[in-house]
Order: sequence, then C-alpha cells, then structure tokens
Amino acid sequence: EICDTGYTVLPRDFENPSVFDGLTPTEYEAVKVYMFTKTNLSLVPTSTGTPRNAYIFMIDLLLPPKDKVIEHLDHGMTQPERKALVVVFRGDLSTGIVEEYEVGPLRYPTYHRKINPHPIPFNFRPMDDPEYGRLFEIITKATETLFPLLIESYGLAYHNCTPSENCIQFYDVAPRGINDNERRTWFWGFRDVEGLYLHPLGLEIQIDHAHRKFSDWNILRIVYNGQMRASPELLLEDYKKGNIKKLKIPTPTSEQILYSTYKRRGKSEMNVPLQGPKLIEPDGHRYKIDGLHVTYMHWEFNINTKASTGVQLFDIKFQKERIAYELSFQEACVFYSGYGPAQGITNYYDVSWFIGAYINELVAGVDCPDTATFLDVDFFLKSENPLRIKKGICVFEEHAGVPLRRHYASDFHGSYYYYGGLGDYRLVVRSIANVWNYDYVFDYIFHLNGAIEVQVYSTGYVQSAFPLDDELQYGSKMASFMMANIHQHLFHYKVDLDINGRSNMYSTLDISTEKIKSPWYSYFNKTQFKFELNKKSTEEEANYKAANEARYDIFYNDKVENEFKHKRAYRILNHGKTPYLLSKSSETNAARWAKFPLAVSKYKDNEISSTSIYANNGPRNPVVDFEKFISDNENLENEDLVAWVTLGVLHIPHTEDIPSTTTAGSQVRFFLLPFNYFPECPSMSSPNAVHITPKGANGINLNTFGTSHKSNCIQKQNGPASYDGRVYDAN
Amino acid sequence: EICDTGYTVLPRDFENPSVFDGLTPTEYEAVKVYMFTKTNLSLVPTSTGTPRNAYIFMIDLLLPPKDKVIEHLDHGMTQPERKALVVVFRGDLSTGIVEEYEVGPLRYPTYHRKINPHPIPFNFRPMDDPEYGRLFEIITKATETLFPLLIESYGLAYHNCTPSENCIQFYDVAPRGINDNERRTWFWGFRDVEGLYLHPLGLEIQIDHAHRKFSDWNILRIVYNGQMRASPELLLEDYKKGNIKKLKIPTPTSEQILYSTYKRRGKSEMNVPLQGPKLIEPDGHRYKIDGLHVTYMHWEFNINTKASTGVQLFDIKFQKERIAYELSFQEACVFYSGYGPAQGITNYYDVSWFIGAYINELVAGVDCPDTATFLDVDFFLKSENPLRIKKGICVFEEHAGVPLRRHYASDFHGSYYYYGGLGDYRLVVRSIANVWNYDYVFDYIFHLNGAIEVQVYSTGYVQSAFPLDDELQYGSKMASFMMANIHQHLFHYKVDLDINGRSNMYSTLDISTEKIKSPWYSYFNKTQFKFELNKKSTEEEANYKAANEARYDIFYNDKVENEFKHKRAYRILNHGKTPYLLSKSSETNAARWAKFPLAVSKYKDNEISSTSIYANNGPRNPVVDFEKFISDNENLENEDLVAWVTLGVLHIPHTEDIPSTTTAGSQVRFFLLPFNYFPECPSMSSPNAVHITPKGANGINLNTFGTSHKSNCIQKQNGPASYDGRVYDAN
Ligand SMILES: [Ca+2]
Ligand SMILES: [Ca+2]
Ligand SMILES: [Ca+2]
Ligand SMILES: [Ca+2]
Ligand SMILES: [Cu+2]
Ligand SMILES: [Cu+2]
Repeated sequence: EICDTGYTVLPRDFENPSVFDGLTPTEYEAVKVYMFTKTNLSLVPTSTGTPRNAYIFMIDLLLPPKDKVIEHLDHGMTQPERKALVVVFRGDLSTGIVEEYEVGPLRYPTYHRKINPHPIPFNFRPMDDPEYGRLFEIITKATETLFPLLIESYGLAYHNCTPSENCIQFYDVAPRGINDNERRTWFWGFRDVEGLYLHPLGLEIQIDHAHRKFSDWNILRIVYNGQMRASPELLLEDYKKGNIKKLKIPTPTSEQILYSTYKRRGKSEMNVPLQGPKLIEPDGHRYKIDGLHVTYMHWEFNINTKASTGVQLFDIKFQKERIAYELSFQEACVFYSGYGPAQGITNYYDVSWFIGAYINELVAGVDCPDTATFLDVDFFLKSENPLRIKKGICVFEEHAGVPLRRHYASDFHGSYYYYGGLGDYRLVVRSIANVWNYDYVFDYIFHLNGAIEVQVYSTGYVQSAFPLDDELQYGSKMASFMMANIHQHLFHYKVDLDINGRSNMYSTLDISTEKIKSPWYSYFNKTQFKFELNKKSTEEEANYKAANEARYDIFYNDKVENEFKHKRAYRILNHGKTPYLLSKSSETNAARWAKFPLAVSKYKDNEISSTSIYANNGPRNPVVDFEKFISDNENLENEDLVAWVTLGVLHIPHTEDIPSTTTAGSQVRFFLLPFNYFPECPSMSSPNAVHITPKGANGINLNTFGTSHKSNCIQKQNGPASYDGRVYDAN
Repeated sequence: EICDTGYTVLPRDFENPSVFDGLTPTEYEAVKVYMFTKTNLSLVPTSTGTPRNAYIFMIDLLLPPKDKVIEHLDHGMTQPERKALVVVFRGDLSTGIVEEYEVGPLRYPTYHRKINPHPIPFNFRPMDDPEYGRLFEIITKATETLFPLLIESYGLAYHNCTPSENCIQFYDVAPRGINDNERRTWFWGFRDVEGLYLHPLGLEIQIDHAHRKFSDWNILRIVYNGQMRASPELLLEDYKKGNIKKLKIPTPTSEQILYSTYKRRGKSEMNVPLQGPKLIEPDGHRYKIDGLHVTYMHWEFNINTKASTGVQLFDIKFQKERIAYELSFQEACVFYSGYGPAQGITNYYDVSWFIGAYINELVAGVDCPDTATFLDVDFFLKSENPLRIKKGICVFEEHAGVPLRRHYASDFHGSYYYYGGLGDYRLVVRSIANVWNYDYVFDYIFHLNGAIEVQVYSTGYVQSAFPLDDELQYGSKMASFMMANIHQHLFHYKVDLDINGRSNMYSTLDISTEKIKSPWYSYFNKTQFKFELNKKSTEEEANYKAANEARYDIFYNDKVENEFKHKRAYRILNHGKTPYLLSKSSETNAARWAKFPLAVSKYKDNEISSTSIYANNGPRNPVVDFEKFISDNENLENEDLVAWVTLGVLHIPHTEDIPSTTTAGSQVRFFLLPFNYFPECPSMSSPNAVHITPKGANGINLNTFGTSHKSNCIQKQNGPASYDGRVYDAN
C-alpha cells in the first residue's frame, strides 16, 4: 500500500495572485505589451537589442508600499493594485542610461512612471546576450589570430574545435575595470571539459566594450602565461619570435582530467552499492501549500522569487501573529585575491549575475528529500517572454534527527520519574542557485518551537587560477596547472521583524561581570555575570558602537509585555559571523553591509534591498549604498525596524575542494528565536510528543498523544529519474 | 516485505576486550575482589561506607601509555596488559584522603600501586549515597521542626507526605562552600511535581558535612523567603513571633503546575495527529559494529564510555589512516549568577556529578531515529557491582537532508552541460546525559568528505530560582513563583589529532590584507587578502598570543606533503565559540580551559583529561589544572600534539525555556576538516552519487553508479514502545 499524500498541495491560481505573488505569465505579457504599445520608448525586442537601442531588460513584481499591504492584510482593505517594475536599457539616448519604470495597475496597465530619481549610469547595467554575443565575436577573431599559439600551447582552439574535446571556453569576471566608468571586461579561457572551472589556461583577454557602437569595442590587453601584450597580433608576433615564455601543456588523458568531473573514482567503500537512509512520510505531507502560501503547524508564510535576489518570504506568522513581514536573502558576494589579471580583479556581487534566475531544478533524493514538494519559479529577464524554472524550490518536512526537547527525570537510584520528548520536526524551504562555478544552498527552516533558522551552504566548484609563480602565495595548488585562491563569501539577509506590530524597539542585553559581596556570609566576594538592557535609540547607536560579543540582540514592541512584565521579543542569533577585512577596498563599497554581522535600520519603502543589480558593474559608487540606510541616523525607538544580517566564510581553498566544495564544514546560519514572546514553548501543543513513566519492575506507561509510531505503507518514490533540468517558456 | 537489516552488528565479546574497551563485568568483579582480598585496605562494602571507612568509589579502565597502544595497533606488538583505575575513599585514615590505584593485569590482577602523586583532599571527593543518606536525615529532622511553617507557606511537607502530591524534594548544589576546605552544602527545596526543577520554594538549608563523624554534621544556615536564620528552630521561632516575612503560596491547581510538565496543551496544530517524516534504511544498515568498534564507509573508530566524562572515541581512521587517537568530551560546566544562597553559589562541573554515568536509555523515534543501533554502557560507580545502562548510546546513519556536494553546470541558455550531486550521508554517534535538570545531546558525526562534526545540544530544564526582589535582576521571571538566572554553558573537548603519525605541527594561516600595485595597469592599487603560515613553536605561542579571528588552525606532519608541496593537514573550525568572562572568579579555576576556544598542548600520558571528578568540590585549587598543561611552555614542533576545544552558550533564560530549553537555537559545534590532506574529496568514491546529462529535447542520461533509488520494503519499527529506562546490574 502506498503512503497517503496527506494535506493538500494546490498549484498557483494565476487568475488570483495574492499581494506577494510574483507576476503571472499573463501579467508579464500585459506589461510587455503595454511597454511596447503605450510608451514613447522605441523599444526593440530584447533579443535584438544592442547598446544603441532601447529595450526591456527585466520585468518584476513591484510591491505596494508596506502601509497598503498591511491595511489589506490586517484591516480588510482590498488588495492593493498590483504593479510591475520594468528595467529598460536606454541605449537609444545619446548618453545611454538605465531606466526603471513602475507600471500599473495589473493586469491591465494604464500608467507608467520613472522611479529611479538619479539616472543609473549605462556602464552599471548587467550583461545580456546581445552584448555577450558581440564580445564572443571579438574573442573568436582574436583566437583565430592566436590559433598557432593555442594549438602549440594547449592543443585547443576556440573556433573549429569539438566541444568537450579540444575547445576553449571563455568566461568573464567583474568588476569590469579599475574604476566605475570603465566597461573593460576580462575574459579567461578554460579547457572545455566537465568541471572546466578547474582547468584554467593562463590566457586572459581584456575587451573594452564601454562604447555604444560595437565597432568601437576592442581588445586592450591580452595575458598569456603571465606575459601581457596589447593585442593578439602583438602576442603572436612575440610568441613566434621567441620573446615569450611559452607554455606547452600536453593534451591530458581522460585520467588527467578526471579530477574536475563528478565521475566516481577512488577506493571503494561498498562492494555492492547500497541505498542510503531516506525519509518517508507515513501519513503524508503535514504542510499545506496553496500556490505560494505555505502552512505548517502554527506557521504560515508566502514565498516569492526574484530573478535578482531569489527566494523571499513574506508575512511570516506563528499562531496567526506576524513575526516578520519579510525574510529574504539580499546578496552573495565573493571577494578574491590574486595576481593574474582576471583573478586579481574578481569581486563578485552575485545579484548582478541574477542569482535568483540561476536557481535551477532540484533533484529529488539528492538536493531535497524524495518526499519534497517542488515549486516552479517564473521570471522575466533578458528575454522576450517569461521563463519558468520547473521545480526550482522545494518545500519539505524533515525530522532533524535530534529531539527538539527531551528530559529523563532520573531518580538517581536506577530508575526515573518520567521521560518526555519531542522530535525536532521542521519545515524547510530550499532553493539552490548556481552562479557559474559555485552552487549555494539557501534554506529557511521553521521549527515547532517558534524558531526560524536561516542556513546557507556552499558547494559547487571553486574558482581556479593558472598557477603562475606570483599567484601561488594566494592559494593552494591543487593540480598540475591549477590552483585556487583565498576569498571570502558574504551573504546578506533582510529580516523585517514586526513583533506585535510595526512599532518596535531594538535593544541589546549586554552581559558583563560584577564582583559582589554575598548577603549570606560575613565575608565572601563573588564574581558573576550580570546583564543590562540597552535600548538603541538611533541608527548610529545601533550600528556604530563597538560590538560586545557577550550580548543578546532583541526586538520587541515596547508596549507589549508578558504577564511577568518582560517584553515579548524575538532574538537574532548569528552563528555565522565572519571578520570583515576589506572595508578599505573601493571595490567593496557596494557591500558596506558586510561590516555589520547585525545592522538595524528604520524601515523605508525605498530601502527595499541592501543591494542592486548594478552593484557588480558599478561597485565603487553603488546605486544602492547600504551605509546610507543608517547614516541618516534615524530614530529607532518605536519605529518599524529592519534587521540586516551578514553571514560569511573565509575560504582558503584546498585539495578537498576538488571537484567541489562540500557543504559539511562550509555551512553558516543564523536564528530568529522567541525570547519571552510566548508564555511557554509553543511546541507543547504538538501531538507528536512522547511521555513515559515506569510501570512495575520493567514496564512502562507510554503516552504518544494519539500519534502512531507504526506504518506499513510504502512511500511513493520519484528519485532523480524524473529530472529534466531545462528552463521553459512560462507561457 | 520487511527491509533488509544490512551489515552485521555484533555484540561485545566480553571474553576478548580490545585495548580501548571499557572493563567487562568479569574484569570489574576481578578488580573488586582483588581490592578486597589482596590489599591491606580494610575496605567495607560501598553501600555501607561512611566518611570514617575505606571503600571503593569507582573502578574504571586505565588506558596503557599511548606508546604501548600505538606499538600494539601499528607494529603488531601484543595487546598491552589491561589495567584498572580504582578510586578509594580513605575515611579510615585520621586525615581522610582520596586514593587512586592502578590495578593489573586484568583479568587476573597481581599488583596495585598508588598513582596520584599528591594526596587528594577528602573534601574534594564526589558525593555518594551514604553521605546523601545522612544529609537527608538531617533535612528530615529540620523539616519536622519546620512542619508548621511548611504547611502554612506551601501546603507541603518533607516527611509524612504523598509523593507527587504534597511533598518537598531537596537537591544540593556545588561548590560546597566559599573556599575549598569547606564541605558546606546548600540544599534547596522544590515542589514534588513533574518538572520540579521549575518549582523552587525559596527554602534553602546549608549543612556542614566536612567532619568525618556524622554526629558533627550540622545545619549552619537556613534561608526562607530571603531571610536567613542559623537553625530551623530559630527560623520557626521568628516565624511564629511574626519576625519573618511569611510566604503563603496557595496549593496550585493541576492547571497551575502544568507548565513544568511534558503534558500536551495549547492551541492544536493538527486536528488528527499525523505521524511525522522518518528515516528508513531501504537496504539496511550500511555500517558495521563489532562490539565497540564501528566501521562506516571509509571511517572506523572505537567507542568507550567513562562514568566521569561519558563517550570517548579512539583510533579514528579514514581509509586506514589514523586521523585522531582520541576525540572525547571532557567537561560541561554551568556557571550561574544569583542572589539567593544556592543560586548564588552554583557553579557546576558536571563530570564531578558523573555526567557519563547519567547517560540514560535513548528513545527510538525521539532521541534517535527508529533505525538506530543502540549500545549498552557499563560502569562501576558508587555501587557493589558494575551497572548497565541499556541503549545508552545510539549509532545511526542519516541523510542530512542536504547535498554534500552538487553542481548544476548551466549553459546559461536554458539548458545545462551536466548535473552532479551526492547526499550528505553521515554516521552519528549519540549519547544524551542528564545532570539533574539539564539534558545534553552529544553527537559525533562522520561525513563522507573526511569531515568530523562535533555538536552538542542543550535541552531539559533550566535551573530556576525563587523570584526574590534582589534575584530578579539576574534573569527572567517565568511563572508566579519562579524565575531562571543567566548562566553560561561551557563544553570542553579533547582532540588528539595524529596526522600522519604522532609527530605533528600546529600552525595558523593568518589572513590579513595588503595594498598592492597591479602588474597589469600603470596605476591601479588593490586592497585584497593575503595569508601567511605561522608555526606555533611553543605552548605559550600557541595559546597566549592575541587571537586573530581571521585564521585557519591546521595540524600536520611537517615531513608529509602532498604532490604540490602542501602539508597534508586537518583543520579545526570552531563554530561554537563563546566569550569567557569569568576568569577572575576563583570558583572557575578548575575551568581555566574555558579561556581558549582552541588550545594546543604537547601530549602527555598523565594529561589524560582537562578536568577531574574532584573539580566541583575543589574548584579553586583544582586537582587537574588545565593551565599547567600549557604553562610549562613545551616545544610544539614535531611533537605529539593535543588540541582542546571549548564550545559554549551564554544563556539568559526566557519563557520559552518552559518546560525545557529546545535544541533548535542552543546547539553549538566544531569541525575537523581535511585541508590538503586528501588529493581530492574522498567522497568521490561513493556509489551513491548521481550524474545527469541532458538527452534530446527533454530527456536525460541518468547515472546512479549502481545505486537504486527505489524500494518497496517496509522498515521494521521499534518506536518508543520498547523503552524501559532503568539501570541494571551488569553481572
Ligand atoms: Ca535610516
Ligand atoms: Ca519591522
Ligand atoms: Ca605542556
Ligand atoms: Ca596527537
Ligand atoms: Cu569558496
Ligand atoms: Cu542554559
């Protein structure tokens, strides 16, 4: 007998999107048509857009002001009009700029208005296919010139080669220059094999593509084996003359390129491959999904996905009380060190590479348990039509394998008064985004005790570099022609807690010591802890004081106390702090949030995100500068507060990063924890607990509160066989 | 059809214990008989021992010197003779002392010798039943005197009452005095209901029991509702005279004492209780257990358990290479603040309370997955015979629910080159120890990538205090007559890494920044990371330099490099650091290890543990002072090194700690991670990986390396019904 499917999972109702739901295919289409037909912009189709055209780059949901959403959710007002954000590249203007439009109402738009107050420099815009297409033409021409060098050095070519056999692939890095008004991108070559990220060739080409006329684009620098020339022609000339230290990398055997693949090898640990342990749901799903609205035990929340920042959670409630208006990933940065030109310039802002659109289909049984429910992800980016990533998000319940609480009440004489326990059941919302080499696993985890855990794991490939002598100091050599350099991963999250309403306070409970005279002895001094509550009145106080590590960070409504006069609070506990060393690097100006393991700002509708899609191509003068969120030093008392959390990992690569960084050891997390918020642990209502008392000499009284621990059903299994992996047209 | 049981699990072969195995019942018995018959000690049976007698307190395995064990394991020498440690209380001497004897060889002992060089003060000895028995007689007498006060104030009594109804229970705290030569214990009273830890009465009695003659023991102080008197008689007299502020706690209804119980209550989240997700093992266990020797994939190790410190792992190997000689929990401290006499003095060292012997039977389906294998734990402590905790340890494999590694190789045009992934399968060794109120979950976790994760979770009850006005500053009030105070949990671990042999180095890779001129531009300065290896030559260098947070801590054999000249190292990553504030409190002298998130010492056979069973009753002049391990400032270059790791949690209690602290949010962990140790990630040999490439328009080529993802079997289920919970005679 097959196990029951449990609670209902309903697909999205595209006819009736809720206030937080991303645009429906019809809405995307309506906005696109409106832009083409009702504006004076002479838009061309995105696929044919050049830096001299106006075209739509992205369409996204534009959330109504929070006031309006709250009125709708809490006070029965009708749903605010749905609106779209449209990003338009205005290459048609004499000075190209990027424009952002608000378009509404949906699904029959009647107006549009520009929403970015300052023009966004054209060079800050993200890359797209037309631009890449032209750049690869330049690379093709260059590599045709270099053909003899490529064949001699690597046995490879860029044109006229067989993929996965003897081809070079080129990829670009960012920032695209040494100051923000440059658009001078370094491309570096890799051997086109599985795991090409780990096969750098030491061949790097810089192209200036700042000009709006394609014909003005040109190669500025080319570096081969650590030697720079101004053009492929000059490089080839010197190469032929013997003025260049030549590389001669023998064509590797399949054994020699095995290291970068995911193919099985090495000492076997099982003679006969056995299947590992896996989850079943004996009574089926215990969560409900209605489109993008999820209900699990006392929890409920809405999921949305952005092509820029990925998964966002809105309106997170526990027992019908809102805990957070928004909980969402903001940005993933990777800041590298290096000697070579590409490696040396690399400072990634993954939102600018659309980490949200590079969520990819999840594999049942590997990426998520076989029991998971998978949700599709739609977006409109760099394309003519909305696109769909099938199964881009998974939602599943798991048993963390550990009790959430338990107690064995020993009588200290060989028996016990009682045993009580409850498993740590939890709901996980997961997406995995891949930005070229790296794959990040983003988890939002909801526990029965009112705790939310936010965890991010790094996996996928490290970025490698060609091991020039001057490069070696920055990392570990891991293969004959490959090393990987030190870097830092930084992950930023927005946590718009609304604890008992929007009017909140942020305080720290600062722990120190006191030396006191005991009242019970004529002479006894004791050194012990004390703690005091320090209200943070302003953004400056909250964010600029020297951090005391021995503290609790709590958020609460000053007017709402429990019956013992304690503020009903939630605490943010950051277990993934990372030292931030790069504040003097101007390339990190767009990541000034990284200075703060926890920052707090007053909520503003226009401080919707700590980053932007323009960060990587304009990092020194960021369009969104997080520091400005707090440098206006606003009052934080009894205000709508937003917490911002930075997690991070300093990564010195090592051979075990071959072929991929592993999640075990690379994960970092923070928690949102109730702190005098509930009268007691809310998990006490769970019927999945166990209570045991001894009966007679060796019997027990067992109370499972109505929950069975038996099951005879067989779980329906999907496994990886149902995988597809492609992106589809959402229409 | 029932799922296969998989690999073999064999019980202990008590006839042939391995070098690391704890004593067998026969060995315990032989040692006991030897002590009674072959020594001149006039031993009395432990159950009748008084502070004026000589008697056996504990018998434990005494490991041979490491040299000898290594010769046996690695060089084919015969197994070293097995020996026992016997702790004898020598109350028969005019100045009582504690003696420790080595007795051997087993199982037919022929010799004994004293092994503690300095006599251990009698007052440092742990408590036992005879001593408690006499103390409770004194308490009985006192409470008989106080009977009218108890009835009026609480409706409770200590004698002449019905358990779980109207009784008081008294428990003691430690240290037992304000200097180490006192033995003056505070007992405090609790209402005898489920979760009595959360029902303090504000009645505390201090008894001086330092004298060896019972008749010299006497009450020194008694505190009632914050008012101190020198005896129960004086208290009662003043109480009757009205010179005392009286308490009158009405007899609570069952509703009013519900909060401390594990009984279900609150808003229901499921109308019909459904069973949650759980693990099955479709192909059975994939680990082998032979007695106390565990093999899992490339891992193998030995488990031992001590009544003092609990679970120890020895001889941890991966692919036949020893990674660690020992990995073991050392001590759990809880240091409290407070006003009341008991709360104010409380600084627990849980090893002195025998946290290892208060491991308790684990519940299948709650404490460990239903699929787990359970191991018994034997010890000889405070008893006439060896005792057995059945199912005190569980060993299980789980899927962490996340991929260990995965990569989706996007072609950035709607399809992909390949997908590869492997689940994070891992083996967990778990015990849960309960020391009065708290339950700690101790996990050792073995991943396929060569990583070991050590995690400890706090659950069970907080220690509560009676909410006197002066007490309130130290914590949160959580019920009408109950609060809980700020405290710090500290967990100490010994990590005797032996990386490529015993001759090891400890170095840090210290990360900082540099500002360099780029070689590729005429003018471009870049600020970026650099790192340098700093060898730690001596214990002082390793442990006293200001800690740089931006660093890797690596251990390696200086002579063993990989093919790229990197030292084959293991890294210790501490994700559970806690600020240590109490170094000026003399009560924490026995926990000087807590200053170091990571300390490193040169291995010594006599520095077997960082703590002792004498810590709590002699904390100011500790028998084992960790600081001495490093203050002799020995050379650390090319030596056998031992790393010592401190995890911790600063805990400000809050209402959600009712009825118990939850594991989600309280867990802390550290990792042992390979760092250029393997040529690549050793998980590449796993046949449980998945490799997918696209085929045609929407098909795939799926490679599961011979592993099936289907199963139709039904897992044999034990669930909590098989629980027993009692401690048994091991004979
Ligand atoms: Ca502000
Ligand atoms: Ca807020
Ligand atoms: Ca030493
Ligand atoms: Ca060692
Ligand atoms: Cu990394
Ligand atoms: Cu605690």
